[in-house]
Amino acid sequence: METMRAAVMRDRKLVVADVPMPQPGPGEVLVRTLACGICGSDLHALKFADQFVATAKRAGNPRVMDLGRDVIMGHEFCAEVVDHGPQTTRAFKTGTRVCSRPVLMPPTGPQSIGYSNDNPGGYAQYMRLSEALLLEVPNGLATDHAALTEPMAVGVHAVAKARLEPDDAPLVIGCGPVGLAVIAALRLAGARPIVAADFSKRRRELAGAVGADIVVDPTQTLPWQSWREAAAVWSDPARAPQQPAWMPGPPLRPAVVFECVGVPGVLDQLMAAAPRGSRIVVVGVCMEADTIYPMLGITKELNLQFVLGYTQDEFAATLGHIAQGAIPTTPLITGHVGVGGVAQAFDELGSPERHAKILVHPER
Amino acid sequence: METMRAAVMRDRKLVVADVPMPQPGPGEVLVRTLACGICGSDLHALKFADQFVATAKRAGNPRVMDLGRDVIMGHEFCAEVVDHGPQTTRAFKTGTRVCSRPVLMPPTGPQSIGYSNDNPGGYAQYMRLSEALLLEVPNGLATDHAALTEPMAVGVHAVAKARLEPDDAPLVIGCGPVGLAVIAALRLAGARPIVAADFSKRRRELAGAVGADIVVDPTQTLPWQSWREAAAVWSDPARAPQQPAWMPGPPLRPAVVFECVGVPGVLDQLMAAAPRGSRIVVVGVCMEADTIYPMLGITKELNLQFVLGYTQDEFAATLGHIAQGAIPTTPLITGHVGVGGVAQAFDELGSPERHAKILVHPER
Repeated sequence: METMRAAVMRDRKLVVADVPMPQPGPGEVLVRTLACGICGSDLHALKFADQFVATAKRAGNPRVMDLGRDVIMGHEFCAEVVDHGPQTTRAFKTGTRVCSRPVLMPPTGPQSIGYSNDNPGGYAQYMRLSEALLLEVPNGLATDHAALTEPMAVGVHAVAKARLEPDDAPLVIGCGPVGLAVIAALRLAGARPIVAADFSKRRRELAGAVGADIVVDPTQTLPWQSWREAAAVWSDPARAPQQPAWMPGPPLRPAVVFECVGVPGVLDQLMAAAPRGSRIVVVGVCMEADTIYPMLGITKELNLQFVLGYTQDEFAATLGHIAQGAIPTTPLITGHVGVGGVAQAFDELGSPERHAKILVHPER
Repeated sequence: METMRAAVMRDRKLVVADVPMPQPGPGEVLVRTLACGICGSDLHALKFADQFVATAKRAGNPRVMDLGRDVIMGHEFCAEVVDHGPQTTRAFKTGTRVCSRPVLMPPTGPQSIGYSNDNPGGYAQYMRLSEALLLEVPNGLATDHAALTEPMAVGVHAVAKARLEPDDAPLVIGCGPVGLAVIAALRLAGARPIVAADFSKRRRELAGAVGADIVVDPTQTLPWQSWREAAAVWSDPARAPQQPAWMPGPPLRPAVVFECVGVPGVLDQLMAAAPRGSRIVVVGVCMEADTIYPMLGITKELNLQFVLGYTQDEFAATLGHIAQGAIPTTPLITGHVGVGGVAQAFDELGSPERHAKILVHPER
């Protein structure tokens, strides 16, 4: 039996192993993984594996990975077409570089690529992809940058779900890869000024590099304080509401805050500090239980929009924006490893000062 | 000094006491309380008094009641104009029956009536009200029914904040006064069918009486199961989405669920059971800490809209709807007490089988 090398989640640990080569089924192509980003969700899925499975089951997900069997993660990839399965149109010739949403589309319904026992992700040399979802990487776009389509599409989708109005003033809490993707998407959407906050100096630099206008170190300034100063200036002064005489300070533009940390307690802090009527877009993936005080939400009529993933159109548009330079990706790529380096890369990604996005190149 | 009788929150207990008569300030009228409903929030504010104060402070409320001083609650009232303070237009003559939002509007900014040391609510013989907020009770509308304007306006506002689309299928969890107000407002908005659930037989009867189409006993049927059956029938079949072959059952209309319980754990249950893309409108006031699993919200891209109160326009419209019989109030009134009966009424309202709304008549 033909095998391939992969970084495998086995018994809740990452190991390098030879595993069976995937065989493309009907409507599927076999691809060689060229580059695959390591996602914070993968770190979470390894660290909180049982919680991850339990919550997926509780949410009614019909296909949840079995931790007793091998899982090959990796859902942010650029790959090269190697072979075509049955019932394919062969529209993408062998050697074509492609991106895809990390989903297979068999007639029985969608299946995850990566968080699955049956559908290996990009931490392996080869994957199966659904031909119908493939997007060709434009000529001239480097493979490593194309691999960032998935994480950047998360930001594009989060901003779309925020349904921004012209006067909304954004605040981004957390400038890891998710926060950086949101900042880039806000910039693309023309929402200014963009206020962003992170405890890490390195991440604050990256936030500025991808388009944040005001970058805050929370040990020095309260993020909401910087936001208030920024939000006191209306994009269209004619739209600013009349301020009652007794209310302190100028009127503020409506707050739309993006929670891009995903750690218990952040939501509560935001709900306590947010101005009345704020919308909180929850993009950071918190896999643990979290405590909130509903009374805070009620008193201020807050809105919480939880978001996940992206549509096929958003994914395709993001690849186009990256190719055109409208979504910056260069600052984000901070490391490269082979499958043998995945476990160590997981450890290093815990330190925000060193890395944003580490790419796995399984052929290395 | 002139005094009046009141049910007073003193040292975290309800006692009957003689307290100073209120003196109407500039722009204010003195009114005699004719009827005042007991609200679940008052029960909460007594039981969780310290939590109530702490959360209000944390939310940034500049005027929070001091539990070391007397508080006279009661914010659902109908009253009669007795005297006019300085700088009033006297548009409402002595003897006019009026309703008002439980708010005073001095030039220094709005102040609460009821949850306040300085502004007595309707559990006392007299109150101060702002002339600018007064609404005359239409001829022919009974005082007791006019007193329900405030709680029914809560439902009208919650349904307005839900921004219902024609195909949204509502589910109301909890049929205490808040849930009943939401059901009445949904009926008024034409959102059908209305599925409602409560453990109490009495409350289920009331839910049907105010307009619920399908009323569920959660010990017999899962509320979401009844909702699914109802939501499988599209108000406009042409708008029903194409269902993929692999997906079980018919397509469902979008879910808008109203959380009208306000007890820890309900939000988590709803987030676990809700279909993908559901909107949860949080109307029930939970004053304690609550645990949620953000991952459930993320997986299903849920939206949580916390709501509070109503606008002046919604309040005025609600009074009109009650006067016209478009919002039913008769089934809700289940008891009457004087100020001496308030403490016992608080106890009895803990049992859902006996009461929905008890009215306080301070002159009794």
